Amino acid sequence: MLSALDLVRRIDAGALTPAAIIDMCAAAIDAGESEIGAFAFLDIEAARRAAQSAAALTALPLRGLPVGIKDIFDTAAFPTEYGSPIYRGHRPVADASAVAMVRRAGGIVLGKTVATELAHMNPAKTRNPVNPAHTPGGSSSGSAAAIAAGMLPIALGTQTGGSVIRPAAFCGVAGFKPSYGLIPTVGAKCFSWQLDTVGLFAAGIADVAFACAAITDRDLRIDNVAPPAPRIGLVRGHLWPEASEAMQRAVATAAEAAARTGARVADADLPPIFEAAWQAHPTIQDYEAFRALAFEYDHHRERIAPITRELLDGAATITAETYDAARRTVRQGRQALGDLWREHDILLTPSAQGAAPRGFGTTGSAAFNRLWTLMGTPAANVPGLVDSDGLPLGIQVIGPFGRDRAMLQAALFLEKAIAQHLS
Amino acid sequence: MLSALDLVRRIDAGALTPAAIIDMCAAAIDAGESEIGAFAFLDIEAARRAAQSAAALTALPLRGLPVGIKDIFDTAAFPTEYGSPIYRGHRPVADASAVAMVRRAGGIVLGKTVATELAHMNPAKTRNPVNPAHTPGGSSSGSAAAIAAGMLPIALGTQTGGSVIRPAAFCGVAGFKPSYGLIPTVGAKCFSWQLDTVGLFAAGIADVAFACAAITDRDLRIDNVAPPAPRIGLVRGHLWPEASEAMQRAVATAAEAAARTGARVADADLPPIFEAAWQAHPTIQDYEAFRALAFEYDHHRERIAPITRELLDGAATITAETYDAARRTVRQGRQALGDLWREHDILLTPSAQGAAPRGFGTTGSAAFNRLWTLMGTPAANVPGLVDSDGLPLGIQVIGPFGRDRAMLQAALFLEKAIAQHLS
Repeated sequence: MLSALDLVRRIDAGALTPAAIIDMCAAAIDAGESEIGAFAFLDIEAARRAAQSAAALTALPLRGLPVGIKDIFDTAAFPTEYGSPIYRGHRPVADASAVAMVRRAGGIVLGKTVATELAHMNPAKTRNPVNPAHTPGGSSSGSAAAIAAGMLPIALGTQTGGSVIRPAAFCGVAGFKPSYGLIPTVGAKCFSWQLDTVGLFAAGIADVAFACAAITDRDLRIDNVAPPAPRIGLVRGHLWPEASEAMQRAVATAAEAAARTGARVADADLPPIFEAAWQAHPTIQDYEAFRALAFEYDHHRERIAPITRELLDGAATITAETYDAARRTVRQGRQALGDLWREHDILLTPSAQGAAPRGFGTTGSAAFNRLWTLMGTPAANVPGLVDSDGLPLGIQVIGPFGRDRAMLQAALFLEKAIAQHLS
Repeated sequence: MLSALDLVRRIDAGALTPAAIIDMCAAAIDAGESEIGAFAFLDIEAARRAAQSAAALTALPLRGLPVGIKDIFDTAAFPTEYGSPIYRGHRPVADASAVAMVRRAGGIVLGKTVATELAHMNPAKTRNPVNPAHTPGGSSSGSAAAIAAGMLPIALGTQTGGSVIRPAAFCGVAGFKPSYGLIPTVGAKCFSWQLDTVGLFAAGIADVAFACAAITDRDLRIDNVAPPAPRIGLVRGHLWPEASEAMQRAVATAAEAAARTGARVADADLPPIFEAAWQAHPTIQDYEAFRALAFEYDHHRERIAPITRELLDGAATITAETYDAARRTVRQGRQALGDLWREHDILLTPSAQGAAPRGFGTTGSAAFNRLWTLMGTPAANVPGLVDSDGLPLGIQVIGPFGRDRAMLQAALFLEKAIAQHLS
């Protein structure tokens, strides 16, 4: 994999140019793309031309690093199909805000990464680089796979249920879902306006933190100091029995590794309101999707994949009253979460039920992610652990809203502890 | 003006058809549009064709009523230029969610109403129907003017500072800015994602309530029962000296009229945090606009009007730290607002500094509106009062977040009290 921070250090030392990095990506894409299918659209020549302005680019935070953009964000320079046949060949007139922010920060957009249809659950063409017989997860399938395959150092995704954390976990890369609203969703195809959150993929936790710092101009870089030992709350709530045995062991291993390097680990008991909030997630998501995708549903229903069409069919029957009640439940959940942060700096849970499912009938389940999307809290997938088949088992770290830096530091602490444990 | 509720009653009684209402609008447009310029795009023939499905339409909440859509919302059937030369001839591939919701509710989109450029402050072509030598206000200029000129019974707008309440006040119509997020902004050109709020225009308060109820499927109709007498908090904070003498008298008149019909009127003292929050508004708005309009600024800066270009030039220097501090101030303001609602059901303030300014150099100031946009609270412009020149003086009613129905009832109470006072 290409560590963004490693590349930046080599650029800063004069040992590497943006053009040389494009070449590295191009070589990885050349070698793997026909099997992996991480990209919806790709323009390596345009990237090479952009990389010629090396002096201007390397003075900017992203130093001319290539960035992949999930094909759910509008781009004026690339087609934008949102993974949907309805939008075949669609070319937006403007870049999404996040894309413009990447460019302003000195990133070069190398291509659009594959999104599942309308960022929902219908599997797309992408394969998992760790084992191409397995799903990469979704909906940010191409972004996670491109990082895992060393085709890109940074990629943008979005999460409404588990679309950043899950594919990051399945592909064994770092995924970061910042606090709700930190990176604007303006110009990204909406599924649910209260849930859609822009996230990032990179090789390691310090890399996603670097990329987010560069794009948002926030003090999020965590690569210069050793992260302090966090107070970790282990969440084994109503979903715990749904985690695979391998995943349950991975969480225990991660917790032990963290404890051994100084973290305080304790059980975090989630009060019942969180199960209610977890159940409220699909109500809110689906009610809003029925409106966010109203034009597509009303005019092109037959061109929407069955899994998404059926969601929308069902969503048509959700009343405003039910939706409003779900929103009240969420507010109560957010208040209750405030109490948990008095005892724990972060919460630790599986990033997914287990490793990436074999085959391509599903992109996996967002069950372990959707509560935290709903809470708007920052979350990361910490890579490093694998199952007996060598498939990644991701650990999810969650922190308080707006405390993205502290959450990332704790995730880095865990990532280092796991690496130390494995060495 | 065309009262939506009056039209609905006549449709329900079989005395009027959707096609006949289109004819009424067409006649008013024919008579006034060349002088008023309320529309960016208009398709009366398409509306007539749509109105032929009378039986299907009249079974739906909006009964086939014609609706005007501010040209800041994407529409597949009309060009969508966001008031900007950058988007000349732009034709979106899909309808904005709010537009799709209007259609689902049985509304017929008659045309796109004039928006100022990118929904900011640069005056557009629209004139004030009350006196065409005066501005109609902005940025929802065409929506307010079309209602005032009897060209439409319902129009959609958006407010980021005061873009619904101010033009409603200047044109003497009812304006309703619902609680933040009640109507999705998906597919509306973004200026500030934390502030942009979809609102409605109609002849009277009960009419905007009816339209919002129909579009959102919420229990917001208030035309069947007499509204209860509210506890009114009169806000005369740091902005009060900026209100014209005529406006100060109008607020006093409105308060007296309400008191005479049973309302309890008391002074509402806003703690200092609200002045800080008021000052935080432009920080949040401008910081976000610099990112929401990043593509336009980075690629078409010279095609943006000076007033907006200068805002964006200045916004480029706002740091993330300043923006985050402003967001914290807003959170404190929202908490402090909770205390005020223990003593008052609604707050009463001017909708604008005074009547619509003469001439077209400005669309007026959003000073009296922006705090309430920032708070996300429902607000309405109550029409009825005029100055000595016959120009409307709007009264702004504000209620607690999520209590849109109660706020509308109080606004209706005030509207009736004013009408009674004048009769």
